[in-house]
Order: sequence, then structure tokens, then C-alpha cells
Amino acid sequence: MRVLGIDPGLRNMGWGVIDVAGSRLAHVANGICHSQGGNMADRLLSLHQQLTAVLETYRPQAAAVEQTFVNKDGAGTLKLGQARGIAMLVPAQAGLVVGEYAPNAVKKAVVGVGHADKVQVAHMVKVQLPGVQLAGPDAADALAIAICHSFHVQSSSSLAAALAKAGA
Amino acid sequence: MRVLGIDPGLRNMGWGVIDVAGSRLAHVANGICHSQGGNMADRLLSLHQQLTAVLETYRPQAAAVEQTFVNKDGAGTLKLGQARGIAMLVPAQAGLVVGEYAPNAVKKAVVGVGHADKVQVAHMVKVQLPGVQLAGPDAADALAIAICHSFHVQSSSSLAAALAKAGA
Repeated sequence: MRVLGIDPGLRNMGWGVIDVAGSRLAHVANGICHSQGGNMADRLLSLHQQLTAVLETYRPQAAAVEQTFVNKDGAGTLKLGQARGIAMLVPAQAGLVVGEYAPNAVKKAVVGVGHADKVQVAHMVKVQLPGVQLAGPDAADALAIAICHSFHVQSSSSLAAALAKAGA
Repeated sequence: MRVLGIDPGLRNMGWGVIDVAGSRLAHVANGICHSQGGNMADRLLSLHQQLTAVLETYRPQAAAVEQTFVNKDGAGTLKLGQARGIAMLVPAQAGLVVGEYAPNAVKKAVVGVGHADKVQVAHMVKVQLPGVQLAGPDAADALAIAICHSFHVQSSSSLAAALAKAGA
């Protein structure tokens, strides 16, 4: 099964694709969608186009998006929410079930503890996906989300649902 | 010129379409896109499909989305942000320039004061669009946004930009 992980952000949206066969994980690709300048609608359109191209290129069968950290900065939360809307929409448009995981759940799945920092996450992603070249911290986080999702999907009945919906 | 206004919301997303010729406004259509139940990705997909159908049916040449009120409820702001991302994306996908207006600016344009309540807004929308049948408060707000945008677009150089981008 091919799994896409997305770390949503307006400026930098990380993505990572892995193949999962039983307990074996293999890196497929990772990268970052960028949106800069211009008005909000054009930035969201750009993210939608870039992420749609990732889906069309790698054709994942399952997808997961990191749950966004909500803080007191309402304007920042709103911007992130808009970007996250695109991150959720694109795999849904491809007919995929979209999982959601809190940052701590992702870290616990990949590193073993919920309070790991970005360096630890990137390190464990490299350990679990030997030879991977990371496009950046956001791409490493996205691969971690994909790894987390592969654990959950495999250990739950959502595997059947995901595969049925993906037509696999 | 045909103008679309959108009042973004996850459960109820209001939309309204008006035709503008000089100072004359005419109602075209209004309604509400609903998303209920299911997971977040499916709800966003449903809103995207419904709003895309509105664009395809009425083919507006300009669009505007209400700026969202940001409060201390981070989780609520994030949900609204996700829905607003869809509201911004759909007209951008149709090649439209997407205007943004704060709620107070919309009320000031339509009612004359920035602190008007929903009843006043709906009343003035009915006055300015005689014979309109409102699908609900969210649709009334969306028509108010379209009216506000028509004032701004007509009185600024963005008219030329909007028409050029819409190929009109």
C-alpha cells in the first residue's frame, strides 16, 4: 500500500510518500509545496495545484494530514486552517480516506515519545527509510505522518475501508 | 458584470450572485452549501463540489469572500479556516480575482453602519435586490458581500484587473 503524509502549512506544505508491505517501509518521494506572495486565493490555488500534481504522480492509496497546533494567535490559526483545508481536500478529491493525527501521536509512533524535537523526528525517519534524501524539515514531518498512518491503518479495520475506497 | 459573494462556514456556506450594470443591481441567485456529518475531509470535499457547481451554473466574473472573525476559540477558528480555504480556492480555480472584506466593511457598504445586525443586513439586501427570496441568513450575508464587492470593484482599478482575469 502506498501512503501519503502531509504536513500542512501556507508557506511550506511538506509531503512524503512511502510504500508499505507488512512491516516493511520503503521511501518513494518527498518534497515541499511552496506558496509565496500574491493574495490568499492565489496562494491556496498554487498549493492545490502542486499537491494535486503530487497525487497524480505518485497515486497513493491512503493519506494522512497532521492535526494543526492551535494557539492563541487567531490570525495565524486561520491562515493555517485555510492551508489545511487544501491539504485535506486534495486527497479527498482523489477518493482517499484522509487520516488525521496530532503531532504528539506522530512523534510517539515514529520516535517512541510524544515530545521529540524535529531533529529526532528527521533522524528516525532516516533510520526507518534508509537512503532517504529529505527535502527539508516539513518533508521529514510529512514522512513521519505517513509512517504513523501506515501503523494505524495496518492495525485497524480502516485498512479495508481505505483500500475499498481507493479501489485497490 | 456578475459578482459572487461567499459567506464561509463549515456547516453552512452562504453564496449569492448579483448582476451589476452601472449603479443598477439585480439578484440572480442565492443559496447555502451544507456539509454535515462524516469526517472533515469529506465535508470539505462536499463544500468544494457544491460551490464548484454554483460557479459552473452562474459563471460569475468577480468574487468576494467575507473575512472571518477570529476569536479566542482556536479549534473553531481552525475549522472555519479550513472551510474558508475552500471558499477562496473555488473562485480562484475559475480564474477569478477574489476580494476579501471584513464583516464591518460589508455592513457599512450595505446598511451604512459597521455594527448592523443580521436582520438589518437582510432588510437592506431585500431593499437593494427587490423581489429576492433569501435562502437564509448566510445567503443574505453572501449577497451583502457581493453588493459590497460591486461597489469596490466599480470604484477602483480592480475592475479592469478582474475583467481581464475573467476574460470578459
